[in-house]
Amino acid sequence: MKMYILFFIFGNFFARKESVMNKRKDVLAKVTGRAVYANDIELPQMVYAKVVRSTVPNGIIRSIDSKEASRMPGVIRIITAEDIPGIPSLPRERPVLCPGRVRYIGDGVALVAAESLSAAEDAAEKVRVEYEELPALLDATKALEPDAPQVHETGNRIARYITRRGDAEKALAEAPHVISRSYTTPRVQHVCIETEAAVASYDPATGETLVRCPVNSPFPIRKVVAETLGCPLTDVRVVLTTIGASFGGKNYDIAMASARAALVSRLLGRPCKVVLNREESIVEGTKRHPLFADYKVGFDEEGRLLAMKIRLTLDGGAYTSKTFPVTSRMAIEASGPYRVPAIDTEAVSVYTNQVYSDALRGFGSPQVDFCSEMLIDEIAGYLGKDPIEVRKLNMLENGKPSAFGQIMEDVTLPECLEALEDAVDFPARRERIRQYNDTHQRSKKGLGISLLHRGESFGAAGQGIDTASGMVSIQADGSVSVCSSIAEVGQGGSTMVVQIVHEALGIPHEKIRYSGVDTTFLTDAGPTVATRGTVFSGGAIYRAADELRGKLIAYAEKYLHTREVEFKDNKIIAAGQPDNEVSLQQVIGDVFAASDHLNALGYYAAPPLEYDKSCGVGDAYLSYVYGAAAAEVTVDTRTGFVSVDEFFAVHDVGHAFDKAEAEGQIRGGVSMGVGYAVMEEVELHKGQIMNRNLDGYLIPTSLDMPKTTPIVLEIPGRHGPLGAKGLGEPATCAVAPAIVNAIADATGRRIRNLPANLEQVALGHSIKKR
Amino acid sequence: MKMYILFFIFGNFFARKESVMNKRKDVLAKVTGRAVYANDIELPQMVYAKVVRSTVPNGIIRSIDSKEASRMPGVIRIITAEDIPGIPSLPRERPVLCPGRVRYIGDGVALVAAESLSAAEDAAEKVRVEYEELPALLDATKALEPDAPQVHETGNRIARYITRRGDAEKALAEAPHVISRSYTTPRVQHVCIETEAAVASYDPATGETLVRCPVNSPFPIRKVVAETLGCPLTDVRVVLTTIGASFGGKNYDIAMASARAALVSRLLGRPCKVVLNREESIVEGTKRHPLFADYKVGFDEEGRLLAMKIRLTLDGGAYTSKTFPVTSRMAIEASGPYRVPAIDTEAVSVYTNQVYSDALRGFGSPQVDFCSEMLIDEIAGYLGKDPIEVRKLNMLENGKPSAFGQIMEDVTLPECLEALEDAVDFPARRERIRQYNDTHQRSKKGLGISLLHRGESFGAAGQGIDTASGMVSIQADGSVSVCSSIAEVGQGGSTMVVQIVHEALGIPHEKIRYSGVDTTFLTDAGPTVATRGTVFSGGAIYRAADELRGKLIAYAEKYLHTREVEFKDNKIIAAGQPDNEVSLQQVIGDVFAASDHLNALGYYAAPPLEYDKSCGVGDAYLSYVYGAAAAEVTVDTRTGFVSVDEFFAVHDVGHAFDKAEAEGQIRGGVSMGVGYAVMEEVELHKGQIMNRNLDGYLIPTSLDMPKTTPIVLEIPGRHGPLGAKGLGEPATCAVAPAIVNAIADATGRRIRNLPANLEQVALGHSIKKR
Repeated sequence: MKMYILFFIFGNFFARKESVMNKRKDVLAKVTGRAVYANDIELPQMVYAKVVRSTVPNGIIRSIDSKEASRMPGVIRIITAEDIPGIPSLPRERPVLCPGRVRYIGDGVALVAAESLSAAEDAAEKVRVEYEELPALLDATKALEPDAPQVHETGNRIARYITRRGDAEKALAEAPHVISRSYTTPRVQHVCIETEAAVASYDPATGETLVRCPVNSPFPIRKVVAETLGCPLTDVRVVLTTIGASFGGKNYDIAMASARAALVSRLLGRPCKVVLNREESIVEGTKRHPLFADYKVGFDEEGRLLAMKIRLTLDGGAYTSKTFPVTSRMAIEASGPYRVPAIDTEAVSVYTNQVYSDALRGFGSPQVDFCSEMLIDEIAGYLGKDPIEVRKLNMLENGKPSAFGQIMEDVTLPECLEALEDAVDFPARRERIRQYNDTHQRSKKGLGISLLHRGESFGAAGQGIDTASGMVSIQADGSVSVCSSIAEVGQGGSTMVVQIVHEALGIPHEKIRYSGVDTTFLTDAGPTVATRGTVFSGGAIYRAADELRGKLIAYAEKYLHTREVEFKDNKIIAAGQPDNEVSLQQVIGDVFAASDHLNALGYYAAPPLEYDKSCGVGDAYLSYVYGAAAAEVTVDTRTGFVSVDEFFAVHDVGHAFDKAEAEGQIRGGVSMGVGYAVMEEVELHKGQIMNRNLDGYLIPTSLDMPKTTPIVLEIPGRHGPLGAKGLGEPATCAVAPAIVNAIADATGRRIRNLPANLEQVALGHSIKKR
Repeated sequence: MKMYILFFIFGNFFARKESVMNKRKDVLAKVTGRAVYANDIELPQMVYAKVVRSTVPNGIIRSIDSKEASRMPGVIRIITAEDIPGIPSLPRERPVLCPGRVRYIGDGVALVAAESLSAAEDAAEKVRVEYEELPALLDATKALEPDAPQVHETGNRIARYITRRGDAEKALAEAPHVISRSYTTPRVQHVCIETEAAVASYDPATGETLVRCPVNSPFPIRKVVAETLGCPLTDVRVVLTTIGASFGGKNYDIAMASARAALVSRLLGRPCKVVLNREESIVEGTKRHPLFADYKVGFDEEGRLLAMKIRLTLDGGAYTSKTFPVTSRMAIEASGPYRVPAIDTEAVSVYTNQVYSDALRGFGSPQVDFCSEMLIDEIAGYLGKDPIEVRKLNMLENGKPSAFGQIMEDVTLPECLEALEDAVDFPARRERIRQYNDTHQRSKKGLGISLLHRGESFGAAGQGIDTASGMVSIQADGSVSVCSSIAEVGQGGSTMVVQIVHEALGIPHEKIRYSGVDTTFLTDAGPTVATRGTVFSGGAIYRAADELRGKLIAYAEKYLHTREVEFKDNKIIAAGQPDNEVSLQQVIGDVFAASDHLNALGYYAAPPLEYDKSCGVGDAYLSYVYGAAAAEVTVDTRTGFVSVDEFFAVHDVGHAFDKAEAEGQIRGGVSMGVGYAVMEEVELHKGQIMNRNLDGYLIPTSLDMPKTTPIVLEIPGRHGPLGAKGLGEPATCAVAPAIVNAIADATGRRIRNLPANLEQVALGHSIKKR
């Protein structure tokens, strides 16, 4: 009984090239070099600004001596927090320029505005800042100790979320088996191919400041710029440039660049560009939250989970950004996609005097997914069971409560796991690996798996309002404009909304145009983060399209004598009567002839969730996505080099608007997961990032990529447009655990601290100090 | 019993400067030279295109020899109709480039694309076009004669509209007095300070063509460009640049410039600018329809109108543009704002091989207003009656039918005339004039008046769909975005919509931002012509604001315990309870906290009108505006020079969103009316315009302006937002008749052919041949 459609996508890119080019119009611009990035923009009279950054992790600014810098050729002005007409920073948040106190090495202290980028760079080095250094807090696990240095006056705790259901203490005491394990995940970065940039133009005639920048979330950035300038939101217009990837990083970091460019433009009355080079981007830019996790789990002989006690500490760095929803997500998802009758989870995020943490593809999930999937394999190993069987015994089931007490519906883990088993053929593969390992001494193969669940959007516990809006307008010739402030960050967001309109109205892709993002014209669709795009922004667009569909059906009734119809190929066809049809163009003409219109504003707000924040129990998210993954690795036991040979990733996307897109998302997710698994880590020493460029911070190249088999399931969900579910973040979440489980399978050595780098794999420990 | 508020606006500009600058943000950009006009745009790789125009009024293109032109330095390509991927022209409409046949001197034959404007100009002169000349039709009054040259294969008639009510023939036969008079009005032009220009950029990566141009009606222009390129409407994006006046002329003329620029850009893959110099603008650009009118009127001893027979011939020139609604308007309004029991009007517009006619401030009204106001003075003169008394006897009355059988409501002519009489003090002024004339031989003073009615928007008989839409979004900080595709053509359209939102929601002007026009993001609000802006686009914005007002009232109820409230100064205040209030910001915050939104899409469609097109009887327009004017002139009887000394203009605007704006509209209208009355006329000889620059085509300078007293009445109408009525076009309609009536009063010589230029005033006839 297969309720779903299963797609094995083995096609190669070139066979699909034409359809991809047709559907994804942004692709051609990118590959031909015609796409205009913020750094490509040059305007008459433009000035360039460079940031003078803090060189101490915690300190009070005693003086800023800009005399020498001011005298350098091409320098126009040195700007400090005092020059900001609005608010230099919110409490504990986003200092555009620090007013008096710095909190990490990289904090912005001054801006040098000059006639050229190099003049600004040269002068920025000559600005002398004198600090009174304060003791710095550099270890998140010590942040809440009584004598810890205080990063902010209000204490070091950012957020605390708990999930407490049943009596975990008692259940653990009574459990036949109990193990305790500690895991850590590293600080990693987005490594977008495009670094942060923004161009701002203040127009004194209209009072409007136009900011052109690549950004995930244009409306929040508009707010930061307006607060910095001290003006109404509508005096700031944010227009999106082409984005050279975001992965969650084109939020606060772009807000800083935008606010600084806008500030200079406002003060000097000239356009201003701020662009960061790679080192600046690494030193200043936000990172994924590092996690320090302690798990205690009780289980029976079969491996059935009985209780968990989980303590999570997140390093938020020097300022708050998306740390609240990231922390809440971890508190909810920490036990993995498994039923746990009794749970006691506490997730605490803290400030440290280090580069701060923000959204990064996965938004809290990759960290706890690593922990829970390690743990389930450790239980299997402890009991000598098959890790797949232990998972099947515990995984979420329809009608049964999750660890946090939500009665689950639409769980598709069984289908995901079945598809994975079909694709991987575990028995045969294990046999093949056994034979390989028997005949190889220095090179061992292993097979690992992981399961995945992930709440969509912000959820009941997190910050942020889960709403989105969008507009669809059918023109007189049957072409369509779609406006949404969902940002095309390379994830295919624009393709998705076009596809929604196509499927709802039967209008061909080439007649549907997705507008770029301009906050002047669009309504706020909320930020493009946390896999919100499909369900929320897509949902708003779908509602708008559906409203128009309803109107067209009403006008078509006089031709078809029924309202039971389908829309296809520019026609409206009576259901079950293939010859009873009317052209869409005819009906559109009738609508306009009746002085009616075909514009619809769609709005989507998440329905309220029954969730008790005091104990973290209830309906945490509206909906969940599921997946399963397997990795086969070969480990050089002498050097510790891990070759990820093959990767299988199953994702239930509900409804694939475009299979090639879904495949691309999965492949990209695997690539990021490989980096997270075996190589990436921002190395800090006394608050200073040591690997400040891509020579020291390694990410996977194409040669590091496994042979990847993306498996796209389409089991329609009940919330997203046409049943669609999110994929952007899930695609990366299940990767690292499958790989590290495979390494354990190959070497018999359990790695609990990401990344599983050479030292850990070869020696069992890292030579680096965290 | 004064139901209305009467404003005498005598203030000078400087006293109001600050408020004007605050409210009209476009003003500062214009006066400081910061406003960016289309011709100011320079893009990398831009090419410049010049049009090769027909030198014969009617002919078949035998050959286009571009060899020599092609070899000239900087020339990139010579483009003809054959190169157009879409449609070069619609039947009888707008030839972007003529495919084989030219129909007036100025018709576009080829485009020269070159690296510079001067290179394009030089080469355009070297393109040799060989024509087979055909007999040209140069006299509209002969267009329907059987042997007339045929401008189009389908015949020379463009449109015919009639108004036939009662038995006019019989009533004329039985009338005590009957007079017949013929009137003509000239071909005049818009004379915008900015000539036609457009910059187009085709992006091969996205398939989108961006057209930046100054245009009244962005969506119709988008259609012309899309048809020319043969692409969906949504592949063309029209973004409005600052407009240096339109007066109705920034429609077809800009469509031509835009389509040509887009064509070149599409063919060459480079941005292209088309800009016309003044001579080109005069030779090619559309004009006001010349009118040839024959009136036969029957009346009784008192001057009471009994019947009219009216025959109108409009010269539409070589192509159709807005000729349909202009012709229908004339058929309806030809008898003036007077009750006529029996009428037989026929208005016919015809093609000629001359520059074509389009909308020009007034849209058909100024022509027939001149005729009807001459006629009523002639009746008064014939009977020896006071022209004011004859008007009072006949003017439209509430509850009584108009000449075309509409039972009139909200007629404010009595109030307008009363206000005019109060301001002018006719008895005293006439006495003063009599004394002057008694003591001056070569210089005679005279006083003339006119009344005005004008149907708003397109009306029941005209072409075009009377709908508009707009969007209002309240942001989280209480600032507001207003989007409407109504074009700011200098009329204060943007100020109007901001004022509507301000009055509906009590939000200060500085927190309301009107977006510029970009067809990608906006919904079609229909063209900005025919005094549609206030009632239609304003109505759509008002509905959107009112929807938000309703939502805010609902959310405010928990604070105020009532839904009877007013919005003022960022507060919502319970009606009659000045202390029972809540801040708007509080309520806005509540809306967003409830995951609700404050975006509204407003739509306004004219209600259907009961109108019988077969006889032209019924409710011709939804609403009417009224006015009254008086002019005092001094005529040099020897030279014929007319000095318009003083002008009084009363207009009922229903609701003045800004009094300074209304005054400005009136003063501008008076200026155009003075030109129409005494100096302006495009002189044609064998189809060729003789006065091809502003040395030969004179328009009033500030020294020609009378001392003007604008009188703004505010008697709320029932259709426009907050009772507002249109003013843009009415402001110019009543001017010429009052002045020419004053000339007759001064000289005793009745001028029936506009303009009342030196020859006619001095000699009683024109030395020019029409």
